[in-house]
Amino acid sequence: MLINTPETVVADALRGMAVAHPELRVDVENRVVVRRDAPVAGKVGIVSGGGSGHEPLHGGFVGPGMLTAACPGAVFTSPVPDQMVRAALAADSGEGVLFIVKNYTGDVLNFDMAAELAEEEGVRLAKVLVDDDVAVTDSLFTAGRRGTGATLFVEKIAGAAAEAGAPLEEVAAVARRVNESSRSFGVALSSVTTPAKGTPNFDLPDGELELGIGIHGEPGRERRPMMTSREIADVALTAVVEDRPPTGPVLVLVNGMGATPLLELYGFAAEVGRGLAERGIEAARTLVGNYVTSLDMAGCSVTLCQVDEESLRLWDAPVQTAALRWGR
Amino acid sequence: MLINTPETVVADALRGMAVAHPELRVDVENRVVVRRDAPVAGKVGIVSGGGSGHEPLHGGFVGPGMLTAACPGAVFTSPVPDQMVRAALAADSGEGVLFIVKNYTGDVLNFDMAAELAEEEGVRLAKVLVDDDVAVTDSLFTAGRRGTGATLFVEKIAGAAAEAGAPLEEVAAVARRVNESSRSFGVALSSVTTPAKGTPNFDLPDGELELGIGIHGEPGRERRPMMTSREIADVALTAVVEDRPPTGPVLVLVNGMGATPLLELYGFAAEVGRGLAERGIEAARTLVGNYVTSLDMAGCSVTLCQVDEESLRLWDAPVQTAALRWGR
Repeated sequence: MLINTPETVVADALRGMAVAHPELRVDVENRVVVRRDAPVAGKVGIVSGGGSGHEPLHGGFVGPGMLTAACPGAVFTSPVPDQMVRAALAADSGEGVLFIVKNYTGDVLNFDMAAELAEEEGVRLAKVLVDDDVAVTDSLFTAGRRGTGATLFVEKIAGAAAEAGAPLEEVAAVARRVNESSRSFGVALSSVTTPAKGTPNFDLPDGELELGIGIHGEPGRERRPMMTSREIADVALTAVVEDRPPTGPVLVLVNGMGATPLLELYGFAAEVGRGLAERGIEAARTLVGNYVTSLDMAGCSVTLCQVDEESLRLWDAPVQTAALRWGR
Repeated sequence: MLINTPETVVADALRGMAVAHPELRVDVENRVVVRRDAPVAGKVGIVSGGGSGHEPLHGGFVGPGMLTAACPGAVFTSPVPDQMVRAALAADSGEGVLFIVKNYTGDVLNFDMAAELAEEEGVRLAKVLVDDDVAVTDSLFTAGRRGTGATLFVEKIAGAAAEAGAPLEEVAAVARRVNESSRSFGVALSSVTTPAKGTPNFDLPDGELELGIGIHGEPGRERRPMMTSREIADVALTAVVEDRPPTGPVLVLVNGMGATPLLELYGFAAEVGRGLAERGIEAARTLVGNYVTSLDMAGCSVTLCQVDEESLRLWDAPVQTAALRWGR
């Protein structure tokens, strides 16, 4: 591993973000990343956070058009309420703050507590829970469905609504609609090794894969002998589409789990595109890359998010973050 | 591996690029990626290419402000002259074309042949060789120094010069100056597995690293027991800085080899930043990410490129590609 010590991994990464991104305010000690011009007058603040190890999520999504602030926890561990409150206070211009919370029990409890504390400090708060993963319900760390790839869609589209000046209730409604319109399915081709443990979190023999994996290596639906990219795309799409059959165009995220080469991920994107076409589903936009990762895990996930004209416009709106940027 | 068959890996990836990037023209059969509006009247064309397996290099750098066209070879294998000629013809508006060639023997020979063939077709050609890797001279596949991370700087800065309307000779001179001002050093924390072989290209035991590795897993300077991120940054910086001591501000590329988690890479960027500060070297800009990769290799490289005001202005100029985008 390319680290100093397991204890300093998150602080070291935050120091690196400070070096590479002068457009962010990085509070290494308190573990909060804020866009430099926050709070932005007249704009709802958007705050997210979660365990580290899923980079560029969430810190890489802080900036104009997306998150106002992010707070990273220890690896695969929820941030604490104090971080979330600091992020909320840094993000609040008086228009209120939306917490975007991936559905893991620790995150949910801590963001609930932080919301109470921030409200006591005078911040108007709304929350949206992301729970898009169709693979399993009630997994390790989660009651209900896990939050995975849809987080990117929720953060981008709610971020664009906030940037356009929408009030808190509307931004929260947009975020909820995006989550409800999104479904994901992930596949692991290798295990994942956390710095603290130093050995693979679970055992996945060469030549096997696990369908329906979570982003912390939580168990999925089943193990199988290695499949082709085409077969994997069909399994993932079938799972996603059966759970929520799209009735209109979708945004597509073809996401790498961290260690899958981009060459392979683009090949997988081709099979996802083929699979969608065969099912008569229109891909309005397709994003390919490592966005919601699981440290050094090889594998991929597919997220579909059905969009109306308004959501598509918000998706296309300019964004200027470390990991996602387009428009002016 | 997330593939269909080893034989279709490159074609599958190109099909995926076509799905995800409607702003590109992707000729899957002939393996050429071209920006959709090429040839751009009045603009010098910029063409690069090389073996696949280093994505997003080069196809991910095609677009306004960077490459006009790219041609990917088979994995770790030079593209053939026919691809290069097609790319040159697609890129040429009559103002001529610059070939950016990484210094590997196969690439050099094939681009030389392609230049002759393209000139016979009436394209005015210039070439620049990228050879920034200070680790070794005369490695596998290479006479002289290998071309690695500086390729990104050369393609971006020459691309900006071309976009601004500079004539061919000037664009070529800019590209050569960027290469001469750049030095790189890479470190492998794991081996690399190509789809065709299916097993690691070389043996690197757990708990060891190889200093001075090439982007195809060519041997470096030495093996050592695992080092800290801080120690690795110091070895890499010392190698780069001793070879060409900067006398002014530098661009910094902190590059992942493909399988190193972004969390770790940002931590490494912090150590590179510290090491530069300790050496009194000003980092004008720092870019962190997986840009010049080696399939599933874990590891990293550091590239420094000394810049004057003009080069820095060209670096900051807008770019709109799959992998690198900023500005309007």
